[in-house]
Amino acid sequence: MIVLDEAEVRELLDLDGLVDALADAHRELSAGDVSMPPRIAALVEERQGLLGVMPAYLPSAGLACKLVTLFPRNTDRHTHQAVIAVFDPENGSPLAFMDGRYITATRTAAGSALATRLLAREDSRVLALVGTGVQARSHARALQRVRSFDEIRVAGRDSAKAEVFADELGPKARAVRSYEEAIRGADVVAATTHATEPVVRREWLSPGVHVNSVGLNRN
Amino acid sequence: MIVLDEAEVRELLDLDGLVDALADAHRELSAGDVSMPPRIAALVEERQGLLGVMPAYLPSAGLACKLVTLFPRNTDRHTHQAVIAVFDPENGSPLAFMDGRYITATRTAAGSALATRLLAREDSRVLALVGTGVQARSHARALQRVRSFDEIRVAGRDSAKAEVFADELGPKARAVRSYEEAIRGADVVAATTHATEPVVRREWLSPGVHVNSVGLNRN
Repeated sequence: MIVLDEAEVRELLDLDGLVDALADAHRELSAGDVSMPPRIAALVEERQGLLGVMPAYLPSAGLACKLVTLFPRNTDRHTHQAVIAVFDPENGSPLAFMDGRYITATRTAAGSALATRLLAREDSRVLALVGTGVQARSHARALQRVRSFDEIRVAGRDSAKAEVFADELGPKARAVRSYEEAIRGADVVAATTHATEPVVRREWLSPGVHVNSVGLNRN
Repeated sequence: MIVLDEAEVRELLDLDGLVDALADAHRELSAGDVSMPPRIAALVEERQGLLGVMPAYLPSAGLACKLVTLFPRNTDRHTHQAVIAVFDPENGSPLAFMDGRYITATRTAAGSALATRLLAREDSRVLALVGTGVQARSHARALQRVRSFDEIRVAGRDSAKAEVFADELGPKARAVRSYEEAIRGADVVAATTHATEPVVRREWLSPGVHVNSVGLNRN
């Protein structure tokens, strides 16, 4: 059996392949060819934690189960952690056990990349990133693989974090002072925040803009 | 993270400790202190296979999920295979990933051993094993740890298999020709077969006998 830690998963995961795999998976799901029961979770009440499990079989992707823990009180490590167990769909034997945290973060962005590939204008040039966290970073990586942006605008509650993030992204990127400034005139928007108030307003959106809005599970 | 294969699990699993752990677990379950949602499964229709997942949190035992595959068409390997993922209930981090097939087989027998410890007469001397498969073997091991048997009778559909199994069990054991012969006069019975017809009949049972009857999931 193959065991992969987060560094190995990072090394091996092909981002373009992931977007293609998601396209196949969504198609199979819509066609009713997927077995994917609603997830269940065991609760650790003392810590307000939970272990959620998500088994699925997709003909294109195989047989696997993601196991996610959500421990909101964690301060010395991630609040969301995950592992993935993969089985041979021919005989049920375990094939691999791998860290699932990076895949989870990346898969969310890959879903947005797939939507952007299919729905955003081909000539999209300006990307607005709303948020400066894990998902903002994975969206920056993923969305640049499906469209060629000339300009990337970063906005967050904390302007220092927005500056750091824009620096990471290179010369095309710059931090701006407000969500409005990021979004007005953008061709593609990625809203990737934990905000409970709206961060994208209709009056800021240009005609034909494509908006990726990442949901937040409040378990 | 610790990764244990079946041989390592066999080496490490303490059978007496397992029975004690099951006693604690049943007590917690009855007291309502356990989080254990009903299992779900992803189906692989082409193979009539399934991946069932069973997450649970028990204060005495921790946070874990068993993942079981059942592929009834397998001929070159077990039809039931299993792995167990264990997490730290303080913070949700993965701690261990281990083979679960031996634990599953052993846990069933340990449940019977716990019932036998609590319910069978202290002076039980004759054990009847009905069946000659994996569960018959694990029951033979487990039940001898909670009662001192002078005589072990083995009965199965295939008398050659019963002979082999009795030889494995040593000088106290002998194969008999019928279920009735095994069960009449026995103090403890373990019914461990895939039979769809009854293998234990009331008229064969002595007063005060303890019967362990292992269920069969027909998924």
